[in-house]
Amino acid sequence: MSHDVRNRLSALRRAFHRHPEPAWCEFRTTARIVAELERIGVDELIVGRDALASEHRMAVPPSETIHEWRDRAADAGVPTAVLDATADGHTGVVATVHAGDGPSVALRADMDAVSIPESTEPGHRPADEGFRSETDGYMHACGHDAHPAVALGVLEAVVASDFSGTFTVLFQPAEEVAGGGKPLAEGGSVDDVDYLLAFHLGLGYPTGTVVAGATEPLAMAHITATFEGASAHAGKDPSGGTNAMQAMTTAVQNAYGIARHGDGMTRVNFGRVEGGSASNVIAEEVTLDGEVRGGTTALMEYTRAELERVLYAAAELHDCDVVIRRISESISVDSDPTLAGLVADVARDVPAIDTVVPAAPLGASEDATFLMDRVHANGGRSSYLVIGTDHSTSHHTPTFDVDECSLDVAVEVLTDVVSSIGERRP
Amino acid sequence: MSHDVRNRLSALRRAFHRHPEPAWCEFRTTARIVAELERIGVDELIVGRDALASEHRMAVPPSETIHEWRDRAADAGVPTAVLDATADGHTGVVATVHAGDGPSVALRADMDAVSIPESTEPGHRPADEGFRSETDGYMHACGHDAHPAVALGVLEAVVASDFSGTFTVLFQPAEEVAGGGKPLAEGGSVDDVDYLLAFHLGLGYPTGTVVAGATEPLAMAHITATFEGASAHAGKDPSGGTNAMQAMTTAVQNAYGIARHGDGMTRVNFGRVEGGSASNVIAEEVTLDGEVRGGTTALMEYTRAELERVLYAAAELHDCDVVIRRISESISVDSDPTLAGLVADVARDVPAIDTVVPAAPLGASEDATFLMDRVHANGGRSSYLVIGTDHSTSHHTPTFDVDECSLDVAVEVLTDVVSSIGERRP
Amino acid sequence: MSHDVRNRLSALRRAFHRHPEPAWCEFRTTARIVAELERIGVDELIVGRDALASEHRMAVPPSETIHEWRDRAADAGVPTAVLDATADGHTGVVATVHAGDGPSVALRADMDAVSIPESTEPGHRPADEGFRSETDGYMHACGHDAHPAVALGVLEAVVASDFSGTFTVLFQPAEEVAGGGKPLAEGGSVDDVDYLLAFHLGLGYPTGTVVAGATEPLAMAHITATFEGASAHAGKDPSGGTNAMQAMTTAVQNAYGIARHGDGMTRVNFGRVEGGSASNVIAEEVTLDGEVRGGTTALMEYTRAELERVLYAAAELHDCDVVIRRISESISVDSDPTLAGLVADVARDVPAIDTVVPAAPLGASEDATFLMDRVHANGGRSSYLVIGTDHSTSHHTPTFDVDECSLDVAVEVLTDVVSSIGERRP
Amino acid sequence: MSHDVRNRLSALRRAFHRHPEPAWCEFRTTARIVAELERIGVDELIVGRDALASEHRMAVPPSETIHEWRDRAADAGVPTAVLDATADGHTGVVATVHAGDGPSVALRADMDAVSIPESTEPGHRPADEGFRSETDGYMHACGHDAHPAVALGVLEAVVASDFSGTFTVLFQPAEEVAGGGKPLAEGGSVDDVDYLLAFHLGLGYPTGTVVAGATEPLAMAHITATFEGASAHAGKDPSGGTNAMQAMTTAVQNAYGIARHGDGMTRVNFGRVEGGSASNVIAEEVTLDGEVRGGTTALMEYTRAELERVLYAAAELHDCDVVIRRISESISVDSDPTLAGLVADVARDVPAIDTVVPAAPLGASEDATFLMDRVHANGGRSSYLVIGTDHSTSHHTPTFDVDECSLDVAVEVLTDVVSSIGERRP
Repeated sequence: MSHDVRNRLSALRRAFHRHPEPAWCEFRTTARIVAELERIGVDELIVGRDALASEHRMAVPPSETIHEWRDRAADAGVPTAVLDATADGHTGVVATVHAGDGPSVALRADMDAVSIPESTEPGHRPADEGFRSETDGYMHACGHDAHPAVALGVLEAVVASDFSGTFTVLFQPAEEVAGGGKPLAEGGSVDDVDYLLAFHLGLGYPTGTVVAGATEPLAMAHITATFEGASAHAGKDPSGGTNAMQAMTTAVQNAYGIARHGDGMTRVNFGRVEGGSASNVIAEEVTLDGEVRGGTTALMEYTRAELERVLYAAAELHDCDVVIRRISESISVDSDPTLAGLVADVARDVPAIDTVVPAAPLGASEDATFLMDRVHANGGRSSYLVIGTDHSTSHHTPTFDVDECSLDVAVEVLTDVVSSIGERRP
Repeated sequence: MSHDVRNRLSALRRAFHRHPEPAWCEFRTTARIVAELERIGVDELIVGRDALASEHRMAVPPSETIHEWRDRAADAGVPTAVLDATADGHTGVVATVHAGDGPSVALRADMDAVSIPESTEPGHRPADEGFRSETDGYMHACGHDAHPAVALGVLEAVVASDFSGTFTVLFQPAEEVAGGGKPLAEGGSVDDVDYLLAFHLGLGYPTGTVVAGATEPLAMAHITATFEGASAHAGKDPSGGTNAMQAMTTAVQNAYGIARHGDGMTRVNFGRVEGGSASNVIAEEVTLDGEVRGGTTALMEYTRAELERVLYAAAELHDCDVVIRRISESISVDSDPTLAGLVADVARDVPAIDTVVPAAPLGASEDATFLMDRVHANGGRSSYLVIGTDHSTSHHTPTFDVDECSLDVAVEVLTDVVSSIGERRP
Repeated sequence: MSHDVRNRLSALRRAFHRHPEPAWCEFRTTARIVAELERIGVDELIVGRDALASEHRMAVPPSETIHEWRDRAADAGVPTAVLDATADGHTGVVATVHAGDGPSVALRADMDAVSIPESTEPGHRPADEGFRSETDGYMHACGHDAHPAVALGVLEAVVASDFSGTFTVLFQPAEEVAGGGKPLAEGGSVDDVDYLLAFHLGLGYPTGTVVAGATEPLAMAHITATFEGASAHAGKDPSGGTNAMQAMTTAVQNAYGIARHGDGMTRVNFGRVEGGSASNVIAEEVTLDGEVRGGTTALMEYTRAELERVLYAAAELHDCDVVIRRISESISVDSDPTLAGLVADVARDVPAIDTVVPAAPLGASEDATFLMDRVHANGGRSSYLVIGTDHSTSHHTPTFDVDECSLDVAVEVLTDVVSSIGERRP
Repeated sequence: MSHDVRNRLSALRRAFHRHPEPAWCEFRTTARIVAELERIGVDELIVGRDALASEHRMAVPPSETIHEWRDRAADAGVPTAVLDATADGHTGVVATVHAGDGPSVALRADMDAVSIPESTEPGHRPADEGFRSETDGYMHACGHDAHPAVALGVLEAVVASDFSGTFTVLFQPAEEVAGGGKPLAEGGSVDDVDYLLAFHLGLGYPTGTVVAGATEPLAMAHITATFEGASAHAGKDPSGGTNAMQAMTTAVQNAYGIARHGDGMTRVNFGRVEGGSASNVIAEEVTLDGEVRGGTTALMEYTRAELERVLYAAAELHDCDVVIRRISESISVDSDPTLAGLVADVARDVPAIDTVVPAAPLGASEDATFLMDRVHANGGRSSYLVIGTDHSTSHHTPTFDVDECSLDVAVEVLTDVVSSIGERRP
């Protein structure tokens, strides 16, 4: 790979890194992707709302938040056409090139950031080299700055190759909140796709390693529960209200005690709580923020059903009400073994790759699974690749950074796989 | 009072002491009372079932238990007439004398024992002097042996006096379990009574002290709750059952957390638990035995209603069922201040009394309150007296014993009050 | 009482009402009181820090809050002398007049507001008549605007009378948070006082009623508890952290279950909770805000000791730490019956008083009790008066307002009591 | 295999079936095994105490229980020599034959019954054919009647073969309670063993199937916890005791909430609870019976450590004590893949075997793992075989029964494996 390409990949990734945007607010990111796609030249370019089944979007932030990020993007010069196409939090892009007869192959890349303030410490390369986040409190701490850069690199390489078939790149918004995969799938983007590739950098694997087909992503459901009681003076009239604090604690105590399952792994967590007004007032309202996971979609659904019963009964126990909101969810879908086998074979031939892991549990949740599930349902195949990168610290920490050399490797592996699909048809 | 009377009282109390019988099983006790009443001579003698509204009996033990005690009584020579009248746990006696015009006065005495093994230690007078319980595991540890002796003494004295009016003595079964007061009240025994006196020896007051009118007996409700789940192997199939153990613990944790009440004292307790089969099996059934109390009947009812909601919701929370049984209850009724005033006046004139407490909280539960409530409802007056006795140890302990000198005092005070009612009509 | 006086009282109360200041931030209020005292003329005037044992102050807000209110006061023209004397939240005033031989009498009035936004609705007199709170979010919703007006009225009347003795008025800060009574007592203000009068308007009693001596104020302790665990990813590493959320819920569940006490009333409440970061992260820190109360100081202390054990053990149970902060507390002290008797006698002679309640439970907490306790300890007497006022709605609601006619009544009753103490020496 | 052998196996299994004996009480079973061994003829015969490291025995029942079963055995004619060797619950047998040079091979069979009353229903073969349990309440409901019959069959066949080496059969007591494996291992029985075979019939596999090497047996620890508080009258003195009931419920609620682990499966269960005395008494003592399991020994130990912290802190939270007893435990050891490979190869050559599963998770706990661990520590190999049998209903149910045809199959497979080890030396 030429130095030019390598430099362009790094530059692009750093551009994304400097302007992190959270789920459903990737206006500036979308605009930059569109600009690159126009430069490369594609046959179809669907931006924003037209790519998404709007009603299937999950974990959409409040309008004010969306407008705030939109205004910021507008101030930064994002073209009106993009702002219009992505209005009200409909970010994302689907780009397609038609290159003659052949299979329909798709590549999915996510693009949202997380609400972690980026480190300013010396030794943190983005800080040292001047491409640290320019938006306080937000950061690309999971590699979703590198993902669209890689995907654009693959597209450019495929266009320049003799690949015969259809190639689509899906730039998916809102992966961090498990909100964007489903509306993209429901929007029909992959309905004609024969082979879908999704990928993630890092996840503990070093530069030079590839996991050809990840398995057992954790199915996940994110919910909030608001307990509603009635306040009263705790000294004079302790029985005059109904106690949302007690209802909440009964729920949490019993939620963690939901029975483990003989079929595999389950998880329950409440990670955030807030409510009540003052020490001497029976708490009127308390809100919990939590999630369940399962080794399979069924195990997640078992745990969520148990959790919802616990929440309703805990409210009833304290004569309160509870409002449960299903914020978002993702399902568990394994990579197709045949396609994963082709990926492994291809990867072994890439000089920069020293280790190929045929299959390994993902150990995390992913909403690319909605796209994979759709492709499988239509008779296609999909594989979720992990492409190693030497990362400084754990994902989702203020000093996370990727090894930019791995961007080239990722482009090379993915391009070779796409080409190979055209030839070998696994 | 003559030595003869004093000796007769002691002898009678010791006879009751030697043969303690628990609630609804006081067959031998009933027979002895009947024999004494026949010796004294009364105008009306109602034994057992005819004195009780059978369907209002509470905390009736299983048939086998009743039959066991009945057989024991039959073996001890209890006459068939008494056994017939008291069949199936309908113990108790109501005796009435008509002595011309005048008010209708009633005296209530309870007669059941408790399931505490009596001490055999030297220094425990019943053991030392040969009148210790002859039935293992049961004991008169609350003075209900002295109560019928005193009541018989009062009756004999009233008969011998120039009292003009009607005098009834109610020998009530099943006070310890709060089971006998209500059926006696519902049976109509006190429907024509103008003045009702109930009494208890001891309760921390020494010989020579009288509380003229106790107030604020605790309303009480005794319940059991059986949680029913489904068993499963805890290792292989932890989610295969529904866990009665967890349901029980959720209930207990939250029951003790029922809101205190601004209007006064409430209590909750679960004093006994049992259930499940083995360490590696999800518990299928667990039973709790508990109670609630309140400073007023309404406070008890508030707490019971809260408790029942907690129990049902705790079962629901763990997908179990719960069967709640209301074993028994007692209400809270205060002594009538006017009658208590007369009692106090009379007591001050009794030489053996050195301290008269006009009114004091009872601090315990009593089902004589059902009789008091009925009398008040019909326009009559009632008072609950506490007649002091130097007692060795706390009520309901294996070394409890009363000062037999206090029996004479009790007879004298109560007889004087009965006489005085005839004269003064408070 | 002249129309002039009546008008002056209302005007003064309305001035305080327009500028509510919370606990330890009563800079402007202090300045206005000082100005009035200088107008009236007193022999000793102690402002702020010199009146308080600084280290005994409780529930002091953060420095930034204090500085914000101080700056606001400075902007409103509060003299530098007052700002200096009250620096760093040392508000309050003690004023004394020496009028020859005779007893030392003191009157205590509190002066802080609460953080409730005042109603703007028609029918709410302060809104209708233009003296509504001028500081958003704060309001005199408990009558502590009227209290210093009344106290100043009494002082002026006593000065004008032939009272012989020493008369001190204590303008106490921070009553709402139970923070100011103790440092004022520990500061020595009442060490030479023979008779202390404290008072409150309203509390459900109408204009024309006086409670001569309140009893059984609830002892209270306000605490916060911060559970400190360690975060971890709830999906990948559920056992990798220590869960402050679970520790908190174990604490709350068991705190409400602290055993009721045979000696009287107890209360426990957690009215506010906040903590954790996100649904998929084991919560690292959760903070509770709560209180305990008791019918006596001992009962409050019993409950607080139990609560602290529960909090520490709940943290231990989940391998977390907990930091407990004792924010403030108040004790329970009854009015002296002799002094209350004198108050009742005097009040019966005041024409505007139609009902005198000799004694009644206060049913609330009060930190004037620290001053009362100090006076009693030195052999003096104290009484806590409730002076009725027709109030629109409950204390601590956005539409609370007092009947200004009751201000004159309060001044008259209190002045007559002070005079009477000089004459009768109860 | 001859009809004679087949009949002898069935007859022997039925003899064991008629006389089920629980853990550490297998006196009659031991005697019958000894008699069979004497018939066959072995070189070394170690009975009872000499085979066991007595202090490592776990889950030993009370002396009265042991004596009761011993007396029953004596009445049935068990020889004094066996009774002496097995005194005080030291059951079990180790038999060895020396057949020239060659490897040391051992076979382990367990022999205890469970406390389940056997079905009397028609269709339950043991009932229909007259070999139902003759001891009420106990039953061979897990196949441990067939296991010693099979082991004796293998021994007889090996003796009759040209096997060259040392062959030991371990008849292990107390497997059901995870009590006998460790003392047998610590007693040195397998210290010189090169190849250890353990086996179980059934476990859901039909006749004709063999699992060559089971993996991932669940590590397990069985504990009891007794909470000790102090009783008090729940009505009069609710704070006078310390509440073992509340301590227990806090423990259970939080035990089920012990964090799941990222490394694999964990389990917690409390399957039995009992305590307290009466509804109106604060519970003085409550005992829990429970267990933890883990997919690995480390995961079990993680969970047990968490559980013990929960138990101690729950006691502390309610000012109670807790006594934790470690009743028994088993560890997790995988079959050696090499030996399992040899087993699979041999099994494929057995005509009666139609399905060979090379390796599969055991899904249950086993204390043969202590013996396997010891062999591995000394450089040897072990494999745990599951030999299918068509079983009527689940293990540990009243109608469990094995297909007696599978006994022959088991003998054949195991004998062939033993012979093969001599030849092939895996």
